[in-house]
Amino acid sequence: MGWAIALHGGAGDIPRSLPPELRQPREAALRHCLQIGVDALKAARSPLDVVELVVRELEDHPNFNAGKGSVLTSNGTVEMEACIMDGNTKKCGAVSGLTTVKNAVSLARLVMEKTPHIYLGFDGAEAFAREQGIETVDSSHFITPENIDRLKQAKEANRVQIDYTQPIQKVEEEEASLPNGDSQIGTVGCVAVDSYGNIAAATSTGGLVNKMVGRIGDTPIIGAGTYANSLCAVSATGKGEAIIRATVARDVAALMEYKGLSLKEAAAYVINECAPSRTAGLVAVSATGEVAMPFNTVGMFRACATQDGYSEVAIWPNESCSCD
Amino acid sequence: MGWAIALHGGAGDIPRSLPPELRQPREAALRHCLQIGVDALKAARSPLDVVELVVRELEDHPNFNAGKGSVLTSNGTVEMEACIMDGNTKKCGAVSGLTTVKNAVSLARLVMEKTPHIYLGFDGAEAFAREQGIETVDSSHFITPENIDRLKQAKEANRVQIDYTQPIQKVEEEEASLPNGDSQIGTVGCVAVDSYGNIAAATSTGGLVNKMVGRIGDTPIIGAGTYANSLCAVSATGKGEAIIRATVARDVAALMEYKGLSLKEAAAYVINECAPSRTAGLVAVSATGEVAMPFNTVGMFRACATQDGYSEVAIWPNESCSCD
Repeated sequence: MGWAIALHGGAGDIPRSLPPELRQPREAALRHCLQIGVDALKAARSPLDVVELVVRELEDHPNFNAGKGSVLTSNGTVEMEACIMDGNTKKCGAVSGLTTVKNAVSLARLVMEKTPHIYLGFDGAEAFAREQGIETVDSSHFITPENIDRLKQAKEANRVQIDYTQPIQKVEEEEASLPNGDSQIGTVGCVAVDSYGNIAAATSTGGLVNKMVGRIGDTPIIGAGTYANSLCAVSATGKGEAIIRATVARDVAALMEYKGLSLKEAAAYVINECAPSRTAGLVAVSATGEVAMPFNTVGMFRACATQDGYSEVAIWPNESCSCD
Repeated sequence: MGWAIALHGGAGDIPRSLPPELRQPREAALRHCLQIGVDALKAARSPLDVVELVVRELEDHPNFNAGKGSVLTSNGTVEMEACIMDGNTKKCGAVSGLTTVKNAVSLARLVMEKTPHIYLGFDGAEAFAREQGIETVDSSHFITPENIDRLKQAKEANRVQIDYTQPIQKVEEEEASLPNGDSQIGTVGCVAVDSYGNIAAATSTGGLVNKMVGRIGDTPIIGAGTYANSLCAVSATGKGEAIIRATVARDVAALMEYKGLSLKEAAAYVINECAPSRTAGLVAVSATGEVAMPFNTVGMFRACATQDGYSEVAIWPNESCSCD
């Protein structure tokens, strides 16, 4: 038993030829956010505080698809969503359709703590944000030049997608009609456990490039993109619709609970057997301090650390660089 | 193997002293909707068509909390939500925050069939409804005098709740701050399976009386209020936040899949062991034609029929009246 933390910045078809100017800032951000989480765990902050803190940092980083850097809807607007869940109490909060809230994950926590509800969306969530006095900014804060370009490319290709690392190719009509036909990278998430077995998960996203206005993905759905109970905490990333259908986050916990699998076995089973190929990745920690970070996409921006001194920052399979 | 159908009109603290003028129209509606479903199954309509058809009927009935008869938000508005899922393909659609769509379940089906997404909410869902030309009505269509009274009572009691059968009592501050402190009755749902093992689930609701604007409940959440896979189809009802935390609908299927339980065993386990007491009920069918309708509330408006001639319409435990 010891503390452990894992975080992600999205899974998808990340080419191994990713140029250094796209790779390095993301690796640096993962390393920076991991350190913030490790420091907070060492300072005895609760895992719930830790995952919120780390996801806030990831939201503020323009190279991930959450908070600043969120991709755009077909109307050129941002609609952000987030979720947070505490394992032992199963308390949770979620938000969708945010347009001005600087840190969606913190509004999700306020929904959890200050309302009788779990999940608020769109105008009602924005009104609650104002009532709570949480930091809001003009929508232009979130909209990066890169995302204006991405939307333009997606519209030209007639495709709903999210892609942080490569230009969109024109595709044949049949392929273009596929939901999210290629890589999607950038949703952020964090899971953490302390040495007492307190455990939490959080996820935040801007969704899909060129998504329909009003589209809700897996991130805010308890059991799909985010889940925690007394056994484990899970944050998933990838093609949202596939993750919803496979109830990815809950199934990791259900396999531990109902089939007696270990965290690593359960996480691997969900990614290899339940979620369709090339659609999903996740980070997970167990109450006993295990970590799992499987994905069935080409890559996943990810990082983890455990109390025994292990740490890892990586993008592709079987590849890691030390945090130090 | 044979066809089977089950439907509900909500679970909650339904008093056994329910006056005939409240009881009879609901029993008659359950019987009427069951017959529509049975006729459709006998006419070889697909289970997906059957659950949509039955839920539309329940939505149009002013005595249930979905469609016409939906309860009101704290602002006196309606915000309806619905979900539909096909078991063998795991295709699904969901909607939230509807204000003018006459039959939310049919819009959920259009999201499933006509978009690359699963779930649309609020203004985007309403815009999609107009684009598809689905029937819309003025919001006043949904607002019954009974629900105006219920909201007034809930506001006086400072309570977020839904109660179709009893006046709201003033409560102490501590109890009043509980989420949904008492019975909630009226969410509607249907599950069906044909003799080929095709299987589907659908759920529709107006949510909670005096809910915050923007509140999303369990109904549209795949795995919480609604779920179907190749083993079973489930529609849950009760206290939405408890159902979300317990991932009620997915867990019925997960217990069959990962623990080898039968439908009845799995459904009973979820209701007795996973969902907190007095919070939840569900209807479920398996691909092999089993039916389960457990609840841990005082009662659940429910009905079922199977190909071998069995049928049941009931409200409280161990009580049934023939359909014929």
